[in-house]
Amino acid sequence: MEERAILIIDSSERNSDLYYATKFKVPDPVTYIEYKKESFLVLGDLEVDRGKKEANVTEIIAISNYTDKLKYAKDKNFLLLDIILKEKGIKKLLVSESFGAYYYKKLINNGYDVEIKRGSLYESRIIKSEKEKNYIFDVMKDVDNAFKKAIDVLKESKIEGELLKYNNEFLTSEYLKKVINVYLMSKNTISHSIIVASAKQTIDPHNDGTGYIYANQPIIFDIFPQSLDSLYFGDQTRTVVKGKASKEIKKMWKTVLEGQKIGIEMLKDGVDGYNIHNNIMEYFKSKGYETGLINGRMQGFFHGTGHGVGLEIHEAPRINKQAHNILKEGNVITIEPGLYYEGIGGIRIEDTLYVTRDGYQNLSVSEKFLEIN
Amino acid sequence: MEERAILIIDSSERNSDLYYATKFKVPDPVTYIEYKKESFLVLGDLEVDRGKKEANVTEIIAISNYTDKLKYAKDKNFLLLDIILKEKGIKKLLVSESFGAYYYKKLINNGYDVEIKRGSLYESRIIKSEKEKNYIFDVMKDVDNAFKKAIDVLKESKIEGELLKYNNEFLTSEYLKKVINVYLMSKNTISHSIIVASAKQTIDPHNDGTGYIYANQPIIFDIFPQSLDSLYFGDQTRTVVKGKASKEIKKMWKTVLEGQKIGIEMLKDGVDGYNIHNNIMEYFKSKGYETGLINGRMQGFFHGTGHGVGLEIHEAPRINKQAHNILKEGNVITIEPGLYYEGIGGIRIEDTLYVTRDGYQNLSVSEKFLEIN
Repeated sequence: MEERAILIIDSSERNSDLYYATKFKVPDPVTYIEYKKESFLVLGDLEVDRGKKEANVTEIIAISNYTDKLKYAKDKNFLLLDIILKEKGIKKLLVSESFGAYYYKKLINNGYDVEIKRGSLYESRIIKSEKEKNYIFDVMKDVDNAFKKAIDVLKESKIEGELLKYNNEFLTSEYLKKVINVYLMSKNTISHSIIVASAKQTIDPHNDGTGYIYANQPIIFDIFPQSLDSLYFGDQTRTVVKGKASKEIKKMWKTVLEGQKIGIEMLKDGVDGYNIHNNIMEYFKSKGYETGLINGRMQGFFHGTGHGVGLEIHEAPRINKQAHNILKEGNVITIEPGLYYEGIGGIRIEDTLYVTRDGYQNLSVSEKFLEIN
Repeated sequence: MEERAILIIDSSERNSDLYYATKFKVPDPVTYIEYKKESFLVLGDLEVDRGKKEANVTEIIAISNYTDKLKYAKDKNFLLLDIILKEKGIKKLLVSESFGAYYYKKLINNGYDVEIKRGSLYESRIIKSEKEKNYIFDVMKDVDNAFKKAIDVLKESKIEGELLKYNNEFLTSEYLKKVINVYLMSKNTISHSIIVASAKQTIDPHNDGTGYIYANQPIIFDIFPQSLDSLYFGDQTRTVVKGKASKEIKKMWKTVLEGQKIGIEMLKDGVDGYNIHNNIMEYFKSKGYETGLINGRMQGFFHGTGHGVGLEIHEAPRINKQAHNILKEGNVITIEPGLYYEGIGGIRIEDTLYVTRDGYQNLSVSEKFLEIN
């Protein structure tokens, strides 16, 4: 049977398969071909020397070697791809679901047999090596220190009515985000977005928070940055209250923490993610926390329990009610149950964990506590 | 003639057309449809309430309204798309070249007529509004201040042999990058990558720089961050020498500056980008700076003169030898000639500019100087 060649046309910033395969950071789209244990990266003048030094491939193909052949072509990029595929004797290709429709159509029209793979092209990405696990662990340590900086601000803040004062200014989500993001940046770790939401904003799990931070109300910190060195992500959420939490919030927080513990303790090679999600949901129900549409909005525990973390913040395997994904030794995943009710608030607690044969290693080192005096 | 509906299935972090159309920041892929002056965003439970508040669309379609119909579907996402397209009476679609091959194939197989557009789906993105121009200008002011912070470090550094000492440590690219990135982050502006390269590293335009900064040698600062508020980019490059520049470097720097001036002074509505590139190239030649393969590596001026800047760092129009792109009033573009020679070093000077009917507005406010004592 003729082997299929893997084909990627993308930048490594957008395409983590490309970075996984080549370890080459490139901001603009390049062509990558993998065939019969050899790999080829096609680069323009601007990247060719750096590629030779940095890219983990068999051969760098310089576009400038083909200048004459491409001179009169309308679509130089496609002609070059066609020439190279013919030179290598490649007729059958494997591309990812996100491979661009334009080149897909061109390849089909030019007689190539193109198979589209859903998810990552590299199944091995789901199983993290010791090195990959440590890249993620490093990010999690930065996340812990960034979180501590924000907690220090809350500790030093004074309650004034419903709000908080820090350095004589009312404390805001924006300020706490800056404290976290600037610290992370000093570690060459970058956040595109981050959630620091308080009070009413917490009932919407993806509201990233704006404006004043409220006293005696839940504050959700969801921090999920990427190392600019390794390109791996980490993910962690904690929910705290500056001042006194209400009885309802205390009960919800304890229930979410216990639900998370139930999920975490199930972790090991071979466990079905569906069952983890289901057991947490059942536990919440048993404590009186129902999930569903109430007053026209989703309330309760209405997101998945977790997701894989690696070169993407959300990758396989998913842990939710949609599919039976069997966890394997080497997976790095989050366990992040939450409860959200209008008029009360939202609570979410999330760790990033490494799945082992018999259990797990928790890569989240931040303490879990509710109240800050 | 039946109108084509625009279809995007992507996250706004990856797809700037989606953000341009909806002004909705969403980290995971969503489905967006635009048809007959109406627009629809299909969102899951987690995003639907935020979408209703934040997204600039006619209607938010909640996936949960279709739960029963999707119950037994193998590919729930595609079935939902198919149901919605049929409900809206849409048979003809327009997608971008980066639209995923998986859904493209599914749509074709299900009888849809799908046209693929190269470049952005929205031609209007190339013409910046006053608001968009100001978003970019704001980023450029942050870039200027970040650059000044790095220059302050160079000013305070002491030359020790070939290297520089700052706070009793040898100064590195990594340290200067941190100074710049941490400042930018404090302005909620983010750099994925940044170039601070010195000495030999400067001859490779995309070498982002590592290790010691050298005295009396060129140091290239290429800073191109994105505002996390507006999502617009800015782009600027300066080349400096701490200490004394060689005669060759001085001549090269002046030549690049003059080449840049030639390009900038040509800017106005209607000018051909090809001619700008060509005039700069000719000027360099007239000063004895040839471009081409020397000792097996590209040397001289071997990259384009500029590119559009907006919601992407590199977007239309391109200013290079590959195409005749006519610049228009409202374009925001870079003019960034450079010269790179083995054994001497690299020089690049780059501004981001707004093209007007009769000229331009320079959005780069940083001074241009070579030597720092």
